[in-house]
Amino acid sequence: MSAPVASCKTVLASKVSASFRDQIKKDIKERAIRPKLVGFLANEDPAAIKYAEWTAKTCAETGVEFELRKVDKQDLEQKIDEANEDKAVNGIMVYYPVFGGKQDQYLQNCVSIYKDVEGLTFKYIYNVYHNIRFLDSEETTKCIIPCTPLAVVKIMEFIGVYNAVLPYGNRLYGRTITVINRSEIVGRPLAAMLANDGAKVYSVDITGIQTFTRGTGIQLQAHKVEDTELTLEQVVPQSDVVITGVPVASYKLPSKLLKDGVIAINFSSFANFEDDVKQHASIFVPSVGKVTVAMLERNLLRLHDYQQREAK
Amino acid sequence: MSAPVASCKTVLASKVSASFRDQIKKDIKERAIRPKLVGFLANEDPAAIKYAEWTAKTCAETGVEFELRKVDKQDLEQKIDEANEDKAVNGIMVYYPVFGGKQDQYLQNCVSIYKDVEGLTFKYIYNVYHNIRFLDSEETTKCIIPCTPLAVVKIMEFIGVYNAVLPYGNRLYGRTITVINRSEIVGRPLAAMLANDGAKVYSVDITGIQTFTRGTGIQLQAHKVEDTELTLEQVVPQSDVVITGVPVASYKLPSKLLKDGVIAINFSSFANFEDDVKQHASIFVPSVGKVTVAMLERNLLRLHDYQQREAK
Repeated sequence: MSAPVASCKTVLASKVSASFRDQIKKDIKERAIRPKLVGFLANEDPAAIKYAEWTAKTCAETGVEFELRKVDKQDLEQKIDEANEDKAVNGIMVYYPVFGGKQDQYLQNCVSIYKDVEGLTFKYIYNVYHNIRFLDSEETTKCIIPCTPLAVVKIMEFIGVYNAVLPYGNRLYGRTITVINRSEIVGRPLAAMLANDGAKVYSVDITGIQTFTRGTGIQLQAHKVEDTELTLEQVVPQSDVVITGVPVASYKLPSKLLKDGVIAINFSSFANFEDDVKQHASIFVPSVGKVTVAMLERNLLRLHDYQQREAK
Repeated sequence: MSAPVASCKTVLASKVSASFRDQIKKDIKERAIRPKLVGFLANEDPAAIKYAEWTAKTCAETGVEFELRKVDKQDLEQKIDEANEDKAVNGIMVYYPVFGGKQDQYLQNCVSIYKDVEGLTFKYIYNVYHNIRFLDSEETTKCIIPCTPLAVVKIMEFIGVYNAVLPYGNRLYGRTITVINRSEIVGRPLAAMLANDGAKVYSVDITGIQTFTRGTGIQLQAHKVEDTELTLEQVVPQSDVVITGVPVASYKLPSKLLKDGVIAINFSSFANFEDDVKQHASIFVPSVGKVTVAMLERNLLRLHDYQQREAK
């Protein structure tokens, strides 16, 4: 007798990104604009080079002008400054790592917030963290959201985790979500965004587990963070959604911890779920990269429009 | 026969800080002001607690009102925001580490630049790095300089490394300096400041050695950085000044590399020079902490005055 066939739907990033890409392409064509994105490559990292090639390909398809500038890492900061000042450039991104560590975090802040398609400058991360959604008090200029956390949110909307019946801002109320990664550019802002939308989030990294919530009955305006003594073995079985982003090939989340029917999303470039994840999950999203690139383009269009508005 | 007695002058931080402290004390008394510094302690780190006690003691001596606020690390960001808004607070500092890593770099940027006595917000680090000395184009508002690099510079002025015969901004021209530490908060800005003042700087960390210079004949407006294949064994013997800041007890720079008559300055809380350093050095500065606290107070007074000016 063969094992029972599990009913898991695998959702590919290409499927989610398609509608965004089509919309961006249509928008660019109808308006006869040609937004320009400059990507800086200052390393020989194969993953960064691949990401750059992928950005180039997607931009070509959608009508975005993409220029890859290969620069020496010692010249990068000056080249970013020049692109900040250049009116022909609408958006800037950098393929990290460059120096690694805190010097890269310094570089993120060298990009003008008016050209930061990745949403990695302090202002945008701060605003995500404080649930501030506009740059101005008149609420005419939306903040840029960091690309990868935004891609995960868009995927979660696509696959029905966000409940559109609930009011905007509370659409994850009742959901318990584990995020395994607490980096400053993905895991921590993502946990904050999900909590700001009403979820109870367990944020996991090697130092321990924190909860991100807006309190009982989502009473708070923005989320709060609390340390816990909980273990992965305790939080994963309670979670409706498990999101992994561990940047090492050897890391595998044990499938036996997953509750039946869980939604499993992996944003690491390595497969963080075991091969049998589909025996447990209702929906499995093996990667998010293509949606991240679509979000880059979406952010670029938004910045392009702000720049056009300012120029009037 | 006994070994020859080396002629090394040991200069203690307390000696250098005394004149600054006296000046600050006099200034506060004559002007009948009472600047307020708030220090946030969100860890149990013995070194941080000691640093906080030391700040309290120095502030009491000079007439600065110091308030230590012990807070839970999860509440720290909100407490910083409150202090940013509080007109009774003139300066804010945080005893790091809190979370460690990049999340601490995020926290540094949460402090308002108008209250950042430590000079650790991106704007100030960026300005150091680009040799921008004023916040405004009218040059009425000087930038805050990160405390520890500033303390090292003030010590170097005190012990005559800066040559006052040369024009301001070029007073290290002709000097070769090795800095062993390239952290974002001390080593890298320090190397930039020394190079911006005309020195040839070898910046050393575990990944290798870089040069920071303003080019041959100090032709450049701000320094440039270049990677090298040089080793510690090659650069230290050429250096007029060797500055160490390795935060581990086991690290000792071999004295045999030091050129005779070198100036040796240690800003690590551990002794990074070997016990026989005085057999080689002309001047030895074993620690800088007290000057750092004096610089904190100096920055506080400056920010206090800017706030008073704005209030008018």
